[in-house]
Amino acid sequence: MKLTILGSYSATPHVDKAPTAQLLEIRGHRFLIDCGEGTQVRLRQHKVKFSHIKHIFISHLHGDHFYGLPGLISTFRLLGREAPLHIHGPKGIKEAILLLLKLADSWTNYPLHFHELDDKDSVLLYADDQVEVTTIPLKHRIYTNGFLFKELPGLRKINKIATDKHQIDISQFHKLKLGEDVEDDQGQIIANSKLTLDPSAPRSYAFCSDTAYFPELANAVQGVDVMYHESTFLEDRKDLALKTYHSTAKQAAMIAKQAQIGQLLLGHFSSRYNSLDPFLEEAKTVFENVQLASDGMVYDFE
Amino acid sequence: MKLTILGSYSATPHVDKAPTAQLLEIRGHRFLIDCGEGTQVRLRQHKVKFSHIKHIFISHLHGDHFYGLPGLISTFRLLGREAPLHIHGPKGIKEAILLLLKLADSWTNYPLHFHELDDKDSVLLYADDQVEVTTIPLKHRIYTNGFLFKELPGLRKINKIATDKHQIDISQFHKLKLGEDVEDDQGQIIANSKLTLDPSAPRSYAFCSDTAYFPELANAVQGVDVMYHESTFLEDRKDLALKTYHSTAKQAAMIAKQAQIGQLLLGHFSSRYNSLDPFLEEAKTVFENVQLASDGMVYDFE
Repeated sequence: MKLTILGSYSATPHVDKAPTAQLLEIRGHRFLIDCGEGTQVRLRQHKVKFSHIKHIFISHLHGDHFYGLPGLISTFRLLGREAPLHIHGPKGIKEAILLLLKLADSWTNYPLHFHELDDKDSVLLYADDQVEVTTIPLKHRIYTNGFLFKELPGLRKINKIATDKHQIDISQFHKLKLGEDVEDDQGQIIANSKLTLDPSAPRSYAFCSDTAYFPELANAVQGVDVMYHESTFLEDRKDLALKTYHSTAKQAAMIAKQAQIGQLLLGHFSSRYNSLDPFLEEAKTVFENVQLASDGMVYDFE
Repeated sequence: MKLTILGSYSATPHVDKAPTAQLLEIRGHRFLIDCGEGTQVRLRQHKVKFSHIKHIFISHLHGDHFYGLPGLISTFRLLGREAPLHIHGPKGIKEAILLLLKLADSWTNYPLHFHELDDKDSVLLYADDQVEVTTIPLKHRIYTNGFLFKELPGLRKINKIATDKHQIDISQFHKLKLGEDVEDDQGQIIANSKLTLDPSAPRSYAFCSDTAYFPELANAVQGVDVMYHESTFLEDRKDLALKTYHSTAKQAAMIAKQAQIGQLLLGHFSSRYNSLDPFLEEAKTVFENVQLASDGMVYDFE
């Protein structure tokens, strides 16, 4: 499980900082989360194979989270994509994209599936036997969701030393992985617990951008391993944060503490701050295990 | 008169090359021509004051010429712009921008004027006493215009040595600039031609992207000082150029030669070519005075 920060800043343009976009690699998936202007160039910089992206999750329809999507969809077409692309985002996203494709007379030659959202409560967006993705309803100026990515419990691991000792045939391994007991060569039943090890603990990642501070958010992200939370402002601009439905570094840390998460990543910094050190300092007064997201940063969950 | 190439490549994304966008400085105006994704970052790189841009000309609604516009419009709002912004582009551009602003619930706090185009013939887009901008109808897969920027003839220049010699009072200079004869202190009429010099020759710039080759284009750009013309392909892909309504370097040079222009700039290169030298070589077989546009290039018309 690996997270690449493609863009860590808020809306106004920077020469060397991009607006919000992240790539989450989880159990063989590559999920793109938000897609600010220039995301496709960032993907190129990180040598991401475009064809590996099958699901894109858009938190809300402000430009710094969304205006890179039309170009990326066009690029997929130019690259000859055939695999379906799933776009999960607020109601209206389909109308916008289809209008742009119509005006360009450039319909995709691959299936484009829109999954539009307008639920106020958390909903399941994607699930297979490995991973589950749900929304985290946020409080922003327009309808906005964060996303919770959860690995599902994996299969039990074969304890090779034990299976050799008990002479368990390889044909029984599938049963063992599922947690079942098996028979040895002499027809004797061996308990699963003697032959297997616990699976790796499933990990979880919460993406929360953009949002005003509201304490109930902690319930939705309770105990996650890593949470990205926006911190557009510091406490010196708490009023402005309130007015614009954004958070301060301290407020993000308060959610982290209350939810007892593992690690907090801060991002979506306002360009009014020349130094980001105060974001770290302010958050640490509340929650110790915090890092600043930065463009190009690769966070390894191992 | 100065042209800054903000992006010189065609659609697929590059780490260090941007899609089409140019900034033309002409008689105190700063005209933005096309606005591919990432143009606002390029403007920042070139330290262009955003508030100086009052007119944006969009050739057509393909993403690599247009998908930087919604973000730029949003940024103007964030920067507190109050001055009107004029957007000249194909019919449909207003619907697209207004939909994106509506979905973001981010109406501009400055007047946004759309000048939508669907004329097949050349039309006047802008004129004052200094400059004139007209469309150059092109032949592309969708409705597309190039743009012709022309300085208007300036006022005659005072010949200071002559006006001193004839003791012409400064109060008469305005008449002289307008080409009128004036009286000297003795009431004698002095011919304007004795007291003034010809104004600087007005210069012109033609922007032609994207277009298939059609010889009639030469009429529209006859005698311009500088013409930017797309050359997506070389002659080795002439068939592909025809099919996709693009031009080869040679075809661009044929227009330049036929129109007897001063200088040809080539751009909108397909990313399938690793080296651009052959574009220069191919064009030079037809028209000698040719340069390749490149990101960041500043072309000074002096």
